[in-house]
Parts: sequence; C-alpha cells; structure tokens
Amino acid sequence: MSRKAIRGTFVDFIDDPWTHVGHEQDAARFFADGLLVIEDGIITAFGAYAELSGTYRDVETIEIRDRLILPGFIDGHIHVPQTRILGAYGEQLLPWLKKWVFPEERKYRDRGYAKEGVSHFFDNLLASGTTTCQAFTTSTAVCAEEVFEEAARRNMRVITGITGIDRNAPEWFTISPGDFYTESTELIRKYHGVGRNLYAITPRFAFGASEELLDACRRLKTEHPDLWVHTHISENPAEIRGVAAMFGDCPDYLAVYEKFGLVGPKFTGGHGVWLTDDEFRRLSAAGAAVTFCAGSNLYLGSGLFRLGRATDPQHRVLMTMGTDVGGGNRFSLLNTLEEAYKVGMLNSTVLDGSIDPRQQDLAESERNKLSPYRAFYSITKGGAEALYLDQLVGSFDAGKEADFVVLDWNGGPPATAWHMSLLVEDGGPQDIATAAELLFGIMMVGDDRAVDETWVMGERAYKKASSEKASS
Amino acid sequence: MSRKAIRGTFVDFIDDPWTHVGHEQDAARFFADGLLVIEDGIITAFGAYAELSGTYRDVETIEIRDRLILPGFIDGHIHVPQTRILGAYGEQLLPWLKKWVFPEERKYRDRGYAKEGVSHFFDNLLASGTTTCQAFTTSTAVCAEEVFEEAARRNMRVITGITGIDRNAPEWFTISPGDFYTESTELIRKYHGVGRNLYAITPRFAFGASEELLDACRRLKTEHPDLWVHTHISENPAEIRGVAAMFGDCPDYLAVYEKFGLVGPKFTGGHGVWLTDDEFRRLSAAGAAVTFCAGSNLYLGSGLFRLGRATDPQHRVLMTMGTDVGGGNRFSLLNTLEEAYKVGMLNSTVLDGSIDPRQQDLAESERNKLSPYRAFYSITKGGAEALYLDQLVGSFDAGKEADFVVLDWNGGPPATAWHMSLLVEDGGPQDIATAAELLFGIMMVGDDRAVDETWVMGERAYKKASSEKASS
Repeated sequence: MSRKAIRGTFVDFIDDPWTHVGHEQDAARFFADGLLVIEDGIITAFGAYAELSGTYRDVETIEIRDRLILPGFIDGHIHVPQTRILGAYGEQLLPWLKKWVFPEERKYRDRGYAKEGVSHFFDNLLASGTTTCQAFTTSTAVCAEEVFEEAARRNMRVITGITGIDRNAPEWFTISPGDFYTESTELIRKYHGVGRNLYAITPRFAFGASEELLDACRRLKTEHPDLWVHTHISENPAEIRGVAAMFGDCPDYLAVYEKFGLVGPKFTGGHGVWLTDDEFRRLSAAGAAVTFCAGSNLYLGSGLFRLGRATDPQHRVLMTMGTDVGGGNRFSLLNTLEEAYKVGMLNSTVLDGSIDPRQQDLAESERNKLSPYRAFYSITKGGAEALYLDQLVGSFDAGKEADFVVLDWNGGPPATAWHMSLLVEDGGPQDIATAAELLFGIMMVGDDRAVDETWVMGERAYKKASSEKASS
Repeated sequence: MSRKAIRGTFVDFIDDPWTHVGHEQDAARFFADGLLVIEDGIITAFGAYAELSGTYRDVETIEIRDRLILPGFIDGHIHVPQTRILGAYGEQLLPWLKKWVFPEERKYRDRGYAKEGVSHFFDNLLASGTTTCQAFTTSTAVCAEEVFEEAARRNMRVITGITGIDRNAPEWFTISPGDFYTESTELIRKYHGVGRNLYAITPRFAFGASEELLDACRRLKTEHPDLWVHTHISENPAEIRGVAAMFGDCPDYLAVYEKFGLVGPKFTGGHGVWLTDDEFRRLSAAGAAVTFCAGSNLYLGSGLFRLGRATDPQHRVLMTMGTDVGGGNRFSLLNTLEEAYKVGMLNSTVLDGSIDPRQQDLAESERNKLSPYRAFYSITKGGAEALYLDQLVGSFDAGKEADFVVLDWNGGPPATAWHMSLLVEDGGPQDIATAAELLFGIMMVGDDRAVDETWVMGERAYKKASSEKASS
C-alpha cells in the first residue's frame, strides 16, 4: 500500500456558489494549513493540518509552500484531433470545419500520427492543470483507441468515444450508422470501465447525423444505459437553421436528441449558445448538462452563452466549462474562465437595463458575473456533477481520486507578481476571501504559467520548469 | 556616430489592408532575408540583404535567426497608474472606477510610489513589445512628470499629460480647471518635444469634466495647436446616459468635445463602443482617431466595438488599438489583438444575416474579420497614422526611429510549437503569406512569450530569458 500526505493551502467546494448569492464563500472550503492524506491514489483524509497531523504523523508528508492546491480541472468539451489546429484563421463553424478540421482529423486514421497527436494532447492537458476531460475523437476507431490507451498509461480519467458523423461532411470523414454501432460496441466492451476509462456515445452533432445514425445512438444507449452521451447543440445560427431544415418534425435543436432518447443524466450538449428558454428548462428537468465553451464561442464568433440563464435556480442546468480546442484557441481552462468572465460581463450589461430597459433582469444580470467561486467551482466540483463523476473526482472529500493542481499565483505575464502583491502578504492567504482574490487574479492576470504542478491519482504528473525571468 | 545593421526576416506595412480586400498582402512588405541599417537610432536603409549587403558590408551586422522582426507596437490607450490593479473583480466602468481605480491612483501623488509604478509600467511595456504609448496619468502632476522622466531615461516615445477630472469623483481625486491649466502649461513647457516626449491635453472623460475644465482644454489647444488631445468616449451605456444628462445642449457624446474645439487631427477618443453612425462619420471627417480597446471592452462588459464600421472606406476613422490597462487585464497588445479578433467575429456573425436578416451587411461583416495583416498594421503603421506619428515610427522606412520587436513564433503555451510546425518549415517563412499565418498564430495561440526582444532607437531594451521547458 502506498500512503502519503500533502501539506499546503487548499481550496475546494462543497456546494454550488450560485445558490449562495451574496455569500458565495459559504460554498467553498479553505485550509490555510491543510493536510490531504492519500492511499493508493485515493483520498482517505482531508482537513486542517493541526487536527490531522497527530493521526498521520508517520505518513510521508510533502510540503508545498506558497501555492494554492485545488482539485484537478475538468474540461467538459474538447477535440483530441484538433490539438494542432487551434487558432486557425477567419471562419465561423461550418466553413471552419471544412477548411481546417476535416483535413487535420483525417490524419488520425493513421495510427502513428494519432499516437503523436494524442501524446501532445495529454501533455497539454497536464500543463494546463486538467486531469479529467470529456473528449471528441474522429469517426474511425483509431483515435478513440489511442486516447483510451494513452489515458490508461497516464492513469487519467477520460470520457470519450468514436465521434459519429454521416452527413454534411466529405465521404472519407464519415462513418455509416452500421459501422458506428458495431465499432462503438467493440470499444465499449474493450475500454468502458476499464481502469479510469469511460465511454461516451458520441454523435458529432445533429447537423452531421442522419436519423439512422441517431437511431444507432439510441440503440447503444438502450443496451448500455450507464454510458455517457456527448454531442454539440445550438452553437451557431447557420448550423441551427441547417438542423431545422434536416429535422422538420422537431420544433427545436434539443428536440432532435430528445426524439432519439438521448437527453437525460450523463447527456452533455456542447455550447448551447442559442438555446431557447424552453430548451434550458427541458435540459434542467432531464438532469442533462450543457458545456460553456467561452473561448471557442468568441473565437468562432458563435455568440454569447447565457450564463445567467443556465444558472437560474428555478431551472438550473448542469454545466461544465470546456476549452473546445481547436474551436477554442487555448488549452488552459484558466483562459476559458477569463473568456467566460468576459462573456458574462457583456451579458450582465445587456440585462441591467442600461441599454434597453425592456431587457432588464437584474437577477439574471447578477448570475452572469463569474466570481472566482463560481468559476473554480465550475471546473472542479460543478464539472464533476455535470458529468455525474462527483462520486469520483471534483473535490477533496475522502474516497475521491487524488487528482489535484498546484497553482502559483505569481505565474503569468510580467505584470502578475506586482498585481498579486496588492492582494496577499508573505505567507500566503489566511482566509478564503484572500484565496478567492488570488484565484481571480490567476484567471484574469495569470494564465497557464500559474499551473506549477499537476497530480494524478496521488502522483505528480507535471512540474513546470523554473519560471522565466526577464533581463534587460 | 553609431552605425549598425540588423539582418533577419522583416514584416512591415506600406498601406491600409482594409483598402485591399481580398489581397491584403499588397499592403505588407516582407523580406525573408532583409537588412535594416541604423545610424544613431534612425533607420537609414531597409531592404533585401542581397541588395544592400554590398553597400553596407563594413557595418557591424547583428544576425537574428528564426524570428519575425516588426516595427515596435503602439498602444493608443493605457493608464499608467493602473499598472497594479489590472484584473480586479466584477464591475462595470463607473463602479469599477470608484472601487479600484480611485484608491490606487491616489497613491501616485506620492513621488516614491509613482516612481515604482512608472518603472513597472515601462518594464511591462517592453516585455510586451510596446515601444510607443499614449497614456493617461493622474490629476496631479507627479505621475505625468515621472512618466516623462522615465521615458526619457529609456529613450522611449510617449504621449501623455496631466489627466484632468473635476466631476463625479472624490474631492481628493480631482483638479480645479485653473490648476489644470496652470500645471499643464508648466509641463508642456518643460517636456513637450523634449527628446521623444510629447504632450497630450488629457481631460479624463466628459463624464468627469465641467464646462470650465473643457474650456481650459480648449484654451490649451488654442495656445499650443500642435498638442495631442486624449480622452475617453462612449465606453459604457450608463456613462453615456450620464454625459447626456450633464451636457443637455449636446446631441451626442462626441458633440461635447466638438463644442470645445477639441475634435480634429491628433484627437483620440478611447473606446467608442457605442458611437453612432453619425459620430463615426464626424470623427472621420475631422481626421480624429478612436482607440479600440478590445480586452477592456470585454473585461468591463462595455460592449462590442464596431470594427467594421470604423473601417468603412467611405468614412474611415483613424484607429489605434489599446490595452487600456487596467480596464484591460493584460499588457500585451498580442492579447488585445486576440480579443479584437473575437469581438470582430461576434460582430461578423451578427452582420451576416444568419440571426436577423434585417441586420445583414456583408461588407461590414467582412471588415470585422481581423486578419493578421489588419491586426499588425493596426498596432504599427496604422497606430502611428492615427496618432500622427507616422513620420517618426510605425514602419521600417528610412528616416524613421529604429523601434522594433523580435517575435519568436514558438513562444507561448505548450501547445504553440506543434501548432506552428504545421505552418512553417525549418528556415522560417519564405513568403508573406506564411509570415502572416505565423503572425496570426502568435496572436491567437501565443502570447507575450512570443516577444523575444524589444529594441528602442536601435538599442536592445528587452531580452526574454531562455524559455520555459516542461518536465514531467
């Protein structure tokens, strides 16, 4: 049995901060001097060092100073085979797919290239503090297989699957509904629940799916009700018009997935920028999730996700944050939080009545403000809940898997350190309010350089090299 | 006489890319193997190495490999005394000023603190590749004096001045119109045109100005017609409502500045998010400029600047890009370009007719796409033109001051290098199209880490330390 303890400053969440308006700190848990005890990769105790150190005095203890330790980040929506093409120029969703995505993803039919791409992918995740992701692959099995294999080697928890498309794409990019069913079934048998791997039935999006493909998804979900379902929804206006034309019997985008029995717990629709109020309510009632991919929504000009609507306590929709690399141009969820904050602030202004009084909704305006509590909850415990993984990851509760990230609040562009010195004294934060200010600084002034270490199942999987220093 | 030459790969601009729709490369100049000859800080020759090397064979030549060399970046709108408070949480413009800005700027009445802040400010500029800025200070002379003094020590070209406010701020934050006139006059005499220093008459914004303060600005401009005028305009809906209430005789925000004779060449209004079509046309006709502060406009939730409207060839408005630190949360204009691209893409979708057909304007939609040509033009030659500095900086034409930045296209988060390897072979770009793809990658996938060196008047003023390497 391997047993160790980490001593340092810890932040995690015990509740949804959107249910604590005005006193969000009640949703957080903070130990300025805490101890995390780990046995064989599983957390067995967590609390104040002063309280636990007596019991665990014989356990090897690693001290981590001047850092904030949080649960590993959860990326709810990312495309493995787009690792190399993030940041390609100038198009909205549909022409961007044609110009950049299809040719690059095609390369992943070659196992050698897939191995190389998948290795880059996981390196980038770990350097970003991301320990769990729900990922798209390609329509051929090679890429999904390599993701499962590499995730197993790194002992990382992933949700993925063959990404089916049989419409509105080049012939060589597609998979037939029959092959999709057969090959998915084979991969489910081989990988689902093996180690930390989990399988998602993954129709790429309704715009790329025939009725037969969606029917194959329904069949898979019926045969394996414990599987995840992962897809896109209502990302771009032109895409939505296309879906409406293809599925004339469905009154809106969500209805397409509902028609095939896919919308319920463990369903995630990526983006949801243009979801109607009614669709938000149905997602909420179904226990289904949506992923807010702020960087991507801005990058592809898709639009402004209605954060304050998704988090309406009357109809709360489970929500993950996603980088959506390569529709998103950065791997770090810290950047996603930065962009999500900005989207929220734009929405907030629209809803405060200062532009058009008829649009005033002060409660929804307020819910659009992505405080550090709301932000980091969403990429840890909140993300885990949305993916129905909250019994496994997302906080430091005993029994959970010991995935965590070690944040250096001085990591970032040269402006970072002097800014942070305004917020904290030597010795680090002594209360949750100060820790939250540092976390906000990390997401708005810092960037991936704030990720100093990433730990997976109690083992250190990434350590940043010594930081850059400028000379002049 | 000091004489030297730089050999490397150069990109600069000879025209406005928005006037070359469909063939923007015609606005750029590229030498895969170029030579830049500098005498006493001034460019004396620029061209292909093969053509110039014979003439300048005896000149000491510094070879810079695997880099792109561009004119130094120009930041049209930045607040020196907000260096430390970039990235503060949760407010729109007016409450943000109260909560964060007023207390921090107050510290700059102390010369010691001002010196420290100004030093950080310039360090951050240089680490970002920014060699010229137009900057706000505070309402007391100390900060402006220290900016001029430090800029002179670093030999950098800056435009700044006492930043006057006498309304809607705490008493201790304001300056009387009389003192503003007297102290500005003294600083103009002492600093304007001395070395590379230039003076801007700087009323903070109409919302913070009495008629008397604006009248003092008019008097200064009348007495010194060669001065710059720098202010804010139409940033936030609530601010605009406030200005309308204060200046009941003015039909819109711009009319306030027009009333006091301030709008003409060398006038810059920062933001302009909510400018009407008519105000855009009047700015254009006056030869006045606007600054697009994309990061700030998102950060404070101000709104989406209409890039495609400002660049309408029928009514082209001179335009700089600005970080607007600390309303903007990052010092690097590369990040500003990233955010400006995203704002443009959001506008582009609104104007392509896919949401509301009545809003369709395909030409304006297209002009919102911030290609790398448009982007880097805007922070070099375009910015210089907007500030009426284009005889001095902004390109590599002989006679201009030798301010330039050396960009490493592999600098950025860990995902950067593999992405860039898709675009360029060993040996670097051999044509402008490839160089432009790299520049787009630098602004969307890279960040301030792409700035490897910054040169001011022919001397290296910044060199990045060896890059980070991840270990696992």
